[in-house]
Amino acid sequence: MCSPKIAQVVAERIQRQGVPNPSRRNFLKLGGLTAAAGLAAGAGLLNPSRVRADSHAMSEVVDLSHIFSTSLPTYDKTALPSVQDVVTVQANGYYIQQWTFGEHTGTHLDIPAHFIADGETVDNYAISAFVSPAVVIDISAKAVEDPEAMVTVEDIQAWESANGELPAGALVCMYSGWDTRWEDIAAFRNEDSGGVMRFPGFSPEAATFLVEQRDIHGIAVDTLSLDIGSSSTFDVHFTILGAGKYGIENVANLKALIGKPAQVIVGVPRFAKGSGGPCRVMGLV
Amino acid sequence: MCSPKIAQVVAERIQRQGVPNPSRRNFLKLGGLTAAAGLAAGAGLLNPSRVRADSHAMSEVVDLSHIFSTSLPTYDKTALPSVQDVVTVQANGYYIQQWTFGEHTGTHLDIPAHFIADGETVDNYAISAFVSPAVVIDISAKAVEDPEAMVTVEDIQAWESANGELPAGALVCMYSGWDTRWEDIAAFRNEDSGGVMRFPGFSPEAATFLVEQRDIHGIAVDTLSLDIGSSSTFDVHFTILGAGKYGIENVANLKALIGKPAQVIVGVPRFAKGSGGPCRVMGLV
Repeated sequence: MCSPKIAQVVAERIQRQGVPNPSRRNFLKLGGLTAAAGLAAGAGLLNPSRVRADSHAMSEVVDLSHIFSTSLPTYDKTALPSVQDVVTVQANGYYIQQWTFGEHTGTHLDIPAHFIADGETVDNYAISAFVSPAVVIDISAKAVEDPEAMVTVEDIQAWESANGELPAGALVCMYSGWDTRWEDIAAFRNEDSGGVMRFPGFSPEAATFLVEQRDIHGIAVDTLSLDIGSSSTFDVHFTILGAGKYGIENVANLKALIGKPAQVIVGVPRFAKGSGGPCRVMGLV
Repeated sequence: MCSPKIAQVVAERIQRQGVPNPSRRNFLKLGGLTAAAGLAAGAGLLNPSRVRADSHAMSEVVDLSHIFSTSLPTYDKTALPSVQDVVTVQANGYYIQQWTFGEHTGTHLDIPAHFIADGETVDNYAISAFVSPAVVIDISAKAVEDPEAMVTVEDIQAWESANGELPAGALVCMYSGWDTRWEDIAAFRNEDSGGVMRFPGFSPEAATFLVEQRDIHGIAVDTLSLDIGSSSTFDVHFTILGAGKYGIENVANLKALIGKPAQVIVGVPRFAKGSGGPCRVMGLV
């Protein structure tokens, strides 16, 4: 399928690896970039990969998403994705997989329609809410002692004592350390002897505080649910989604954001009438 | 499922709408934000939704993605997604859809493994490449005259004459105006009388120029393929993916980025061994 000339060019290109490196000055000149934006680029906020290479800058893109596979922890343990090859490079000259999965699988978004009858769906939810300053509440020490440790109002207030009031439009993230269990489905679901899951989440009071007293975009957890594992009333879901906010579950690597100014981007496909969906969650640190 | 108290809180909350608005000063104080980052926030680059409300700033998050549905233009017109309700709020108290689709459907990413036997897959592709300065090449005038208009080396050089050399790590985007045809599948695929699709794309020479002479992250098009519709050799695919770069197809709304400094974020789920996948493409203008 590939013309010999192009194939040769590509092969040579791959062998060579090196690329010309346009001057930083040209980058900053781009399309009338302002001085402020120039400074942002210098601080690594506009183009982290570029700036990192230049200046040993603090800037980095952190992957806050687990790999989406056919073997991962799910809330309903019978609801696993499936995948098959549609075409392969060997047989067809190109490669495509076909997936089947429920919208609440892997690192994924909960949007109001997931629990609220007339709630907004993901295809038309305001996209500006998917770019947010990150606030990470670290309850990992509590979670070692108690698998159903919760982010409480007091935890949020302690964060504010150290950092100031939650920024407007924040994504408030629970870091419980649960993401290190991801590869061990039983440990991640953590069923007790009665078959009830036990893992950390937000307290209902903290959810109410966040939607009543603060101006957030949403909340995120590194576990299977915004509510603790044994919840049967899903109060946190109803409070957050009922207020038109969103949740993210099964987030990874939040530890890398603790104590640092960071933005979180939620890259979720625009599933028509979607209740949420698997997404790429990215931290710009 | 919802406790009456929480339900009441939520109902009151929804009625009331208003939220306390933490001061801008508190946002800028967050976690040791630098002066440069402060300026970036002022220019709307850190938290566009926040800044827009404050200061009539230029900043905005542009949705560069079409809605992902069961009725959309596809390269293979027989390969359409399907969807079903797994549970609904009415019947079950919560709502989840289950989707089945090929990875190259809707606004989606092509990663090297799509055409290259040992190419990188999407789950482990370097995430920093998914944050890029956007460069939009406007060929919409040509595309009115010729449905197989191409982004040529000369088009790129004309952009550079006006704006300086392509920034390192750029996502070079073709704006042909084709996104306005999205709702009309026949017009988007634009088959001629012989059943051959006719739509714009990059020229093979432009693709070679970009991987040989410039340092790009990838390219994007507002049509079904990086190559023009009638291509049977997929030279642009082989050149871009063979060089370890990526492509994005069926991008929307690129017109909103023309002539403006902008970043593009590619939010693609981490499909295991994925050849790409449906994604949320976001422009930060």
